[in-house]
Amino acid sequence: MAVVTVVGAGMMGSALTVPLVDRGHEVRLVGTPLDHAIVARLREDRHHLTLRHALPEAVRPYAVDDLSSALAGADAVALGVSSAGIRWAGRALAPLLVSGTPIFAITKGLEWDGERLRVLPDVFADELPASVREGLTPAAIAGPCIAGELARRVPTCVVLTGRDQARLDRIADLVRTDYYRVFTSLDVEGVETCAALKNAFAMGVAFGAGLHERRGGESGSVAMHNYESAVMAQAVVEMMRVVELAGGTPRTAAGLAGVGDLDVTNNGGRTGRFGRLLGRGLPLDEAVARMEGATLECLEILAVMRRAMTALGARGLLAPRELPLLEEMARVALDGAPLAMPFHEFFGGERG
Amino acid sequence: MAVVTVVGAGMMGSALTVPLVDRGHEVRLVGTPLDHAIVARLREDRHHLTLRHALPEAVRPYAVDDLSSALAGADAVALGVSSAGIRWAGRALAPLLVSGTPIFAITKGLEWDGERLRVLPDVFADELPASVREGLTPAAIAGPCIAGELARRVPTCVVLTGRDQARLDRIADLVRTDYYRVFTSLDVEGVETCAALKNAFAMGVAFGAGLHERRGGESGSVAMHNYESAVMAQAVVEMMRVVELAGGTPRTAAGLAGVGDLDVTNNGGRTGRFGRLLGRGLPLDEAVARMEGATLECLEILAVMRRAMTALGARGLLAPRELPLLEEMARVALDGAPLAMPFHEFFGGERG
Repeated sequence: MAVVTVVGAGMMGSALTVPLVDRGHEVRLVGTPLDHAIVARLREDRHHLTLRHALPEAVRPYAVDDLSSALAGADAVALGVSSAGIRWAGRALAPLLVSGTPIFAITKGLEWDGERLRVLPDVFADELPASVREGLTPAAIAGPCIAGELARRVPTCVVLTGRDQARLDRIADLVRTDYYRVFTSLDVEGVETCAALKNAFAMGVAFGAGLHERRGGESGSVAMHNYESAVMAQAVVEMMRVVELAGGTPRTAAGLAGVGDLDVTNNGGRTGRFGRLLGRGLPLDEAVARMEGATLECLEILAVMRRAMTALGARGLLAPRELPLLEEMARVALDGAPLAMPFHEFFGGERG
Repeated sequence: MAVVTVVGAGMMGSALTVPLVDRGHEVRLVGTPLDHAIVARLREDRHHLTLRHALPEAVRPYAVDDLSSALAGADAVALGVSSAGIRWAGRALAPLLVSGTPIFAITKGLEWDGERLRVLPDVFADELPASVREGLTPAAIAGPCIAGELARRVPTCVVLTGRDQARLDRIADLVRTDYYRVFTSLDVEGVETCAALKNAFAMGVAFGAGLHERRGGESGSVAMHNYESAVMAQAVVEMMRVVELAGGTPRTAAGLAGVGDLDVTNNGGRTGRFGRLLGRGLPLDEAVARMEGATLECLEILAVMRRAMTALGARGLLAPRELPLLEEMARVALDGAPLAMPFHEFFGGERG
């Protein structure tokens, strides 16, 4: 048994407490400044407001003010904050982390620092003092995992990535159960790039369902699945290229973090809903308004990728129109341009 | 304008007539011995019985007895027969084909000849006299294409594969339209292996939906999508390995023929229905009975792959349990064993 502290009481961080409790750990769940209502309700009757499911009795909820006591004696720390909260988490945890404590993020995102794409475990480490940073080798979990399903113990396979195999094996051993299978990968850039990009590409796949609705079509086996699956295949091809640009291994996109997470995102969640609204032809501002303030990670990553594509293109590292799907999604979802999927430019382009 | 003859009046061959007519060709559609009812009805009022959609006025339907006149003066031939019919097609066409005529198959399947996996365009060529075979360089179309959607001009991307780029460019130019995009690939083994395997893997993905129904779950964003997407990711990983064993390029599995076609098969068609029945726990014979005689390509390819895995394993070309998903699907769908997905063996196995 170990003491594991999860920072961030959103859906994914909270769902992670289920396998942790099942492994017999003492599990502490700390809300961020945005999670007050969630923590209050958890204390009342264990019900999690956004997961819409009860957490196990054994989970100990903490408010953000109690971060220090929640971390006291922790054998491992999981970061369940949003991508926007990753620097906050670094600053908040910096004075509290004991060097050598295993730490892993379930936050997904990428940053463009003007020179290169950077993965969030490294962005988190930026905020730590050098003495703490060196002993930490941060890790991250990615792969196809709908939080509401993990909370209900649906069989789930994830990938744990980091730069130290022994450390990964130790973390994997802490969290895995017979329904939460944990595979390890040393390709941090590949895994984390896929994890970040999948939200954008899931939006693109969902354009097809929106176009189908716009034509008055009903759901079924004859719809616009050919459109969706062509976008899905091009998404994996573009993921491979971006992984390469980020310094990772392209083949990673063909596994859990790429194909797997993209597929699960197509089946659940708000990104698909947003893509359908755009595919139906709603103006961008109206589509955003209909999402009622939900965080749209797809817009964040598209903005990052647009800056990256422009800069990499200017440096000759990316040929013009090498990523036609990403460019089209940015045009539609950032600029509000009408959708016109450039299929003829997919897969290296039609020829002959 | 050219004369294009499609042999086989099933759903996919018939759907292909739509872009061919839109390109302005004279299009002849020849039924096989199994297509009498379809051809009779097409002659009556253009309605296609299994597509449940009218074909364009310009399509000329032929019964199998008129094969010779249907091929007279043909500039290109498309093979739309079932995998079981590919040798019949070779024998029937052998005396009628003019050497040098472009020919391409939309039939999907693989054969194990005791030594190696063989793609259907080569099996077809086996049946031709050497003089005809040499001038033919058969080609094939694969990728995500639900026939009923192509017949309704839904945007579709396919991959045309063969061993002669100039020949591929010529065929692609004959068939592509602004909604039917054709990309070319010289990786015949890779493309055709993916095309054949996708039916088996789509059955495996559908196990998840069946398990969810068995638990009394309703469809929605919280179901067993984590299970399905883990299987989907492992499917792509195993496709890559089988492509390698067949002498193709593993990366092909990450494109239209692999990820794309697998994704579209998850969204439509009988393979998914069969997988759901098995996932629900129905005995194999009852699941087969409920499919009411529909051809189950997934069982054909699993039987081929089981023979291939056994032989390749005996020769030391495949390590034990290197393809755990394929082995489990064969156990469930060929032997009637109860489903127990070996997730811990996926992705090279859990470690640590």
